[in-house]
Amino acid sequence: MKEITARHFAERLERGATQAAAAGFDGLIVAPGPDLAYFADYLPVATTERITLLVVPAEGEPAMLVPALEHGGAAQTRAAEAIRIVDWSDGEDEYVPAAGLLRADGRYAISDATWAMHLLALQQKLPEARFEAISHALPMLRAVKGADEVDRLAAAGAAADATFEDVLGLPFAGRTELQVAADLDRLLREHGHQQVDFTIVASGPNGADPHHEPDGRTIAEGDMVVLDFGGLLDGYGSDTTRTVHVGEPSDEEHEVFDIVRQAQQAAFEAVAVGVPCQEVDRAARAVIRDAGYGEFFIHRVGHGIGVTTHEPPYMVEGEERPIEAGMCFSIEPGIYLPGRFGVRIEDIVVATEDGAHRLNNSSHALHLVG
Amino acid sequence: MKEITARHFAERLERGATQAAAAGFDGLIVAPGPDLAYFADYLPVATTERITLLVVPAEGEPAMLVPALEHGGAAQTRAAEAIRIVDWSDGEDEYVPAAGLLRADGRYAISDATWAMHLLALQQKLPEARFEAISHALPMLRAVKGADEVDRLAAAGAAADATFEDVLGLPFAGRTELQVAADLDRLLREHGHQQVDFTIVASGPNGADPHHEPDGRTIAEGDMVVLDFGGLLDGYGSDTTRTVHVGEPSDEEHEVFDIVRQAQQAAFEAVAVGVPCQEVDRAARAVIRDAGYGEFFIHRVGHGIGVTTHEPPYMVEGEERPIEAGMCFSIEPGIYLPGRFGVRIEDIVVATEDGAHRLNNSSHALHLVG
Repeated sequence: MKEITARHFAERLERGATQAAAAGFDGLIVAPGPDLAYFADYLPVATTERITLLVVPAEGEPAMLVPALEHGGAAQTRAAEAIRIVDWSDGEDEYVPAAGLLRADGRYAISDATWAMHLLALQQKLPEARFEAISHALPMLRAVKGADEVDRLAAAGAAADATFEDVLGLPFAGRTELQVAADLDRLLREHGHQQVDFTIVASGPNGADPHHEPDGRTIAEGDMVVLDFGGLLDGYGSDTTRTVHVGEPSDEEHEVFDIVRQAQQAAFEAVAVGVPCQEVDRAARAVIRDAGYGEFFIHRVGHGIGVTTHEPPYMVEGEERPIEAGMCFSIEPGIYLPGRFGVRIEDIVVATEDGAHRLNNSSHALHLVG
Repeated sequence: MKEITARHFAERLERGATQAAAAGFDGLIVAPGPDLAYFADYLPVATTERITLLVVPAEGEPAMLVPALEHGGAAQTRAAEAIRIVDWSDGEDEYVPAAGLLRADGRYAISDATWAMHLLALQQKLPEARFEAISHALPMLRAVKGADEVDRLAAAGAAADATFEDVLGLPFAGRTELQVAADLDRLLREHGHQQVDFTIVASGPNGADPHHEPDGRTIAEGDMVVLDFGGLLDGYGSDTTRTVHVGEPSDEEHEVFDIVRQAQQAAFEAVAVGVPCQEVDRAARAVIRDAGYGEFFIHRVGHGIGVTTHEPPYMVEGEERPIEAGMCFSIEPGIYLPGRFGVRIEDIVVATEDGAHRLNNSSHALHLVG
């Protein structure tokens, strides 16, 4: 696996500045969270009322305001040599040095999750400055992944695949969804995840709810079971779904499963550089609609993944921006039959000049579990 | 222990409305986090770009905007009967119903950690409305605790005390700070904490840094060791500090320890309803200064505690607001001798009409560990 080095962070900062300038902004204001991890390799111990803020100007050197108490950690990151660190101490007005990093009449894209408290103070100090949420202003800011990032997403995907292989060997019938969800959590961690974001286990009629939270329902012979799980491994995300069956499936269950599998494959094959994102959604939807199940596919077909498990680009009707090489996203069509069962199959893929490559490679067959 | 019931949440909402009105606001805008847990008994599964927002108007009924997908959880809280729930669905402009809960020319106090993305959208929808951060506008909003809350803080404090009693029996010499910190984490959980916020183990010269992060230093015979730990138990915080010694202390170590102990007691005795918060800081500081160590007490003496482990009121020079019955806060003076050692003793107390009562009751003696 390629190391993520100081050079990669310097390149991200340069790309961020370029994108900001191209969209007419004077820079980015980046707050603790995924944006800061991405640009500054930095996650403060806790996000509190003590402000930490990276400014990436369209022109000039990035600078990060940090509480003096936390200078040490901020100065030791792989991005540190590309970022000037500005300390502030308890007792001083921290918004004076914060405003000092900005143009008084500047237009800035600011991290979605920046605390309102900090934004209000910046607005007060700089009444002529304008601020827009990064996800509206620059939705594709983190969407194109470097080779270093694709390697990490592949490693997270392989760990999720290994988790699925392991869970196939565990008993399903007679245990609750919550028990199987706990197994998924444990296995993801055993396979290297430091953070587990979701472990959906949706059995029988619960499978008809795409976002079902695992509950005390006991899984029984004859159930379809949707397993959708993921989290972060070394800072990058996994997210995969497989649907298994307890005992022998009915003809209808086989049929619905095969339609979803074909839809997933059709969407996979629709991925190409330059194609609008919505075409990936349309490709899956056409298969399901043509099979007569169109009204039962009730969500978009995919979302991006990177330092979070859920981010742009979205593969959804109306998203006309083109797929670029290096974009990584899920392809996860499903059919949901209310009161009966659901099926979903999800892989993460990376778009390349040669089409999509899968970062999940566990079998798409309908696995029977015990 | 008293149950926290629907009535308690209704009272909190009424108190919030009253305080907002008294400070000249049209209401509170409450975002996911401690404010929402306090007022609405509600913590969404994850805080994401999907907006959840409680509006507590100065006049009228509280209402909470929630994603339709999450309606179920929001409707099942102990606060639900006092709050009207307003759903929004994917695809609609969620800021239309959000703005509909507000007065177009209103003045609102908004949770500090509200996402900037949401605030910017509200400002765009309601250009005449004004917003201020809750911690600036109404710093004492959650500072006065009800009897139901004091009970929970006492339970969390007792669990922290039991953790300290247990850790005294474990070996210190020859183990690293990180190993002892892991013991504190485990013991807090064994004694009922669901969340551990910090486990400071600062041995020998590391003790001179009040915010030292435990590291790989091996604790040795002759070390002073500062132990400062806490977290959340059933939604309410613990935070206690004791300083122990490995083997026999020197005369100087005894002397410094006794000064801190006397300072803690002096601050405790200074607590009375109506007294400005800063007097508690001054009482501890006077003892330390008179003993000749004034320059080595380098932080304020205390902070509030409730649904977080760190909140107003602050016991600090300049905080002239009076102590009220029901306020709960830490008293934690310390002496920090650079390059040598540190001592800190911390209890959580509740202010009552009869002065302060301690919610930590483990011994203040200088315990010798092995």
